[in-house]
Amino acid sequence: MDFERIKGRLDALLEAGKKAELRGALNMLNEVDIAEYLETLDNEKVLMVFRLLPKDVSADVFAYMDNDQRTRIMEAMGDAEAMRIIDDMFVDDAVDFLEELPAGVVKRMLANCDQQRRDLLNQFLRYPENSAGRIMTIEYMEFHVGTTVGQAMTEIRRTAPDKETINTLYVLDDRRELLGTVALRKLLLANDDLKVEDLMNTQVISVRTTDDQELVADTVRKYDLLSIPVVDHENRLVGIVTVDDIVDVIEEENTEDFEKMAAMLPSDDEYLKTSVLTLAKNRLPWLLILMISATFTGMIITHFENMLASALVACIPMLMDTGGNCGAQASTLAIRGLALGEIELKDIGRILWKEIRVALMLGVVLALINFLRIWFFTPYDKDVAFVVSLAMFFTIIIAKSIGCTLPLLAKAIHLDPALMASPLITTMVDAASLFILFTIATQVLHLAG
Amino acid sequence: MDFERIKGRLDALLEAGKKAELRGALNMLNEVDIAEYLETLDNEKVLMVFRLLPKDVSADVFAYMDNDQRTRIMEAMGDAEAMRIIDDMFVDDAVDFLEELPAGVVKRMLANCDQQRRDLLNQFLRYPENSAGRIMTIEYMEFHVGTTVGQAMTEIRRTAPDKETINTLYVLDDRRELLGTVALRKLLLANDDLKVEDLMNTQVISVRTTDDQELVADTVRKYDLLSIPVVDHENRLVGIVTVDDIVDVIEEENTEDFEKMAAMLPSDDEYLKTSVLTLAKNRLPWLLILMISATFTGMIITHFENMLASALVACIPMLMDTGGNCGAQASTLAIRGLALGEIELKDIGRILWKEIRVALMLGVVLALINFLRIWFFTPYDKDVAFVVSLAMFFTIIIAKSIGCTLPLLAKAIHLDPALMASPLITTMVDAASLFILFTIATQVLHLAG
Repeated sequence: MDFERIKGRLDALLEAGKKAELRGALNMLNEVDIAEYLETLDNEKVLMVFRLLPKDVSADVFAYMDNDQRTRIMEAMGDAEAMRIIDDMFVDDAVDFLEELPAGVVKRMLANCDQQRRDLLNQFLRYPENSAGRIMTIEYMEFHVGTTVGQAMTEIRRTAPDKETINTLYVLDDRRELLGTVALRKLLLANDDLKVEDLMNTQVISVRTTDDQELVADTVRKYDLLSIPVVDHENRLVGIVTVDDIVDVIEEENTEDFEKMAAMLPSDDEYLKTSVLTLAKNRLPWLLILMISATFTGMIITHFENMLASALVACIPMLMDTGGNCGAQASTLAIRGLALGEIELKDIGRILWKEIRVALMLGVVLALINFLRIWFFTPYDKDVAFVVSLAMFFTIIIAKSIGCTLPLLAKAIHLDPALMASPLITTMVDAASLFILFTIATQVLHLAG
Repeated sequence: MDFERIKGRLDALLEAGKKAELRGALNMLNEVDIAEYLETLDNEKVLMVFRLLPKDVSADVFAYMDNDQRTRIMEAMGDAEAMRIIDDMFVDDAVDFLEELPAGVVKRMLANCDQQRRDLLNQFLRYPENSAGRIMTIEYMEFHVGTTVGQAMTEIRRTAPDKETINTLYVLDDRRELLGTVALRKLLLANDDLKVEDLMNTQVISVRTTDDQELVADTVRKYDLLSIPVVDHENRLVGIVTVDDIVDVIEEENTEDFEKMAAMLPSDDEYLKTSVLTLAKNRLPWLLILMISATFTGMIITHFENMLASALVACIPMLMDTGGNCGAQASTLAIRGLALGEIELKDIGRILWKEIRVALMLGVVLALINFLRIWFFTPYDKDVAFVVSLAMFFTIIIAKSIGCTLPLLAKAIHLDPALMASPLITTMVDAASLFILFTIATQVLHLAG
């Protein structure tokens, strides 16, 4: 059944005020779908439907709702009820919600929960934004050295329902230092009298609480992990990050790259939920910088103005666009290669050499097609066709070279390579292409420079 | 210890021919790191080191190596030994490797393995490229209706080491139709005499074997799943896809989008491993199409050539670039929003209205700055400044409108929205911006059109 039909049936029950039946129908749905349904309702109805949900389901549904609506529900239901929901959420989901709220509201809410939970949430909220500490969860299974398999299994049976994953179990020493991990499947197979340390894998791949979430995502992706332990600066286990949260991090980081590559400041919210003013503010800085820098390109035209045969002027857009596109192709691959860890700064020589060879091929083909096009299909003579085509050839080589090296150089001076994307490169290539065009024209057509 | 130091120590042992010590050292490393180390060795040494690895480790290491090197190892070691490795790999990893090999080699290899395995691999290789069937694995736990918890636990203990995940167990009826799933943690808590169907969750989210991997990734991401069952057209369970493979799919699909947005045909391989000729071939088509279409922009210039005051010509690059950048910003957000399922075709009105308001804001600011710049810092008079700024204003509005609607329209006619990215939009916006510029100039400066 698709979402529209589900919504239709639920709406009908809601209209008719059949609460018991509505509760029954909601019971058949996945938490994600319930959250999606709630987003279609107005404030008053949201709260009504939300209160129909069983307690454990409502915390999950809440975690899947968007921040605006969660804030509205919280405001409508009062601090005590709100805190009960936050209490039922996994710590990482609760932190994810709390960090978007105004500090005053967070303080008031935390005042309503018990000391232990409050300390915990406060600790999480103190980690740097976008760090491993902010996205980790504490709902994992840990055992101290000396625990037997039998004891461990009893403990797992007792507490498993509250854990986010029980696939991997963590073995700690008395100082809570992480010694190793045990796969649940190994525990299931083992004799009850064995100790957990006899089964553990000591080649643990972990991250620090202060590590950037991008590093966490890269590590999880590289080693194909389902979860990764997070340790503090003394190697004590404080949490784990599960792969479902990593999937969200990856999409977030990718979106940031996309936005930067299109000359925008990154934004955190979904497009439709971002205000027009915010969108405009995110877009203005780069547009402005690039607009101003494009005037230097105009200066090149002005400098050569007395030789502007209209044939040459008419080919300016084509030359500039092709150069810009070539540069963007090279820079996109370099940026993406850096993001995925496929290329490094030390590869710069190989990359440049590769790009120059690609550019030679493309240059010959495109220049030739261009030459034939001008010669056969325009009134201009062979000399003009030759000038434009030669300019095209060199523009492509320059564009590819700039496009592939700039992201690497940005990385070298610790700037984000994604900033060196098509718009910036286009502007530089524009200037180069016009300079090449007019210089060649001066030589070949014997015009005054 | 970082990779360079690990490599240094392993190289030293390898040079000295200390095989036993090398085996001991390798035993301390993660499979991913071993694969990374092998990639730094030449053919002869790779095979030697590879043969030092324990059998179960070597299959895992093999799965993490890149295709070139795997093919070389396979060729060096002969079909029988090669097939033993493929036998030890998870089915999805084996398929991932086999699908890149020439058909003849695949046939020869499959001839070396037993009937059952051969049939299985053949079945996987028949699924469409990039489909759920190609990336699924069959190493999951399934139980038929009527199995007791006690029987299930015995079976799990017996077979768990060969399964890719035992987190979720699948319940089938006699026709192998998927009825529901049971979380392992529920099984651990339950009484031995209960039946698996008493514990199962019947709200199963599944995909079909022929579904595109992008749909699989979207579903896993939406519902925060760790694995998803794959069923055939009669709802019979044939495999599962685990989230670690989904992470790879997401990166693959993102890279494709990036490449398309920079006007390239998508490629499957890592940048440094792609040949120069392939790179050139991927990049040529769009460059060519865009180069030719940019000549239409040139025609606009030619059409207005007798009115080409050099002031206007000099501002062409700035106008074109700003228009292109504005269009790219809008199209990037639309493409990304579509990819993440945040916006749909039916939102087109809201998006267009939003973009137009953003464009009005940006247009006023940029046009004003531009006006002041020309008036104060160039020899041209107020009229020229006015013409250029007004053209800038309308260009931004047109660019944003084109940028946000084209990806949505592409989606409507079942084209990939990512194709409507900056390069194509730049070309369209270039033509529009020049047309606007010259039209306004004709009116205001009273030049002949």
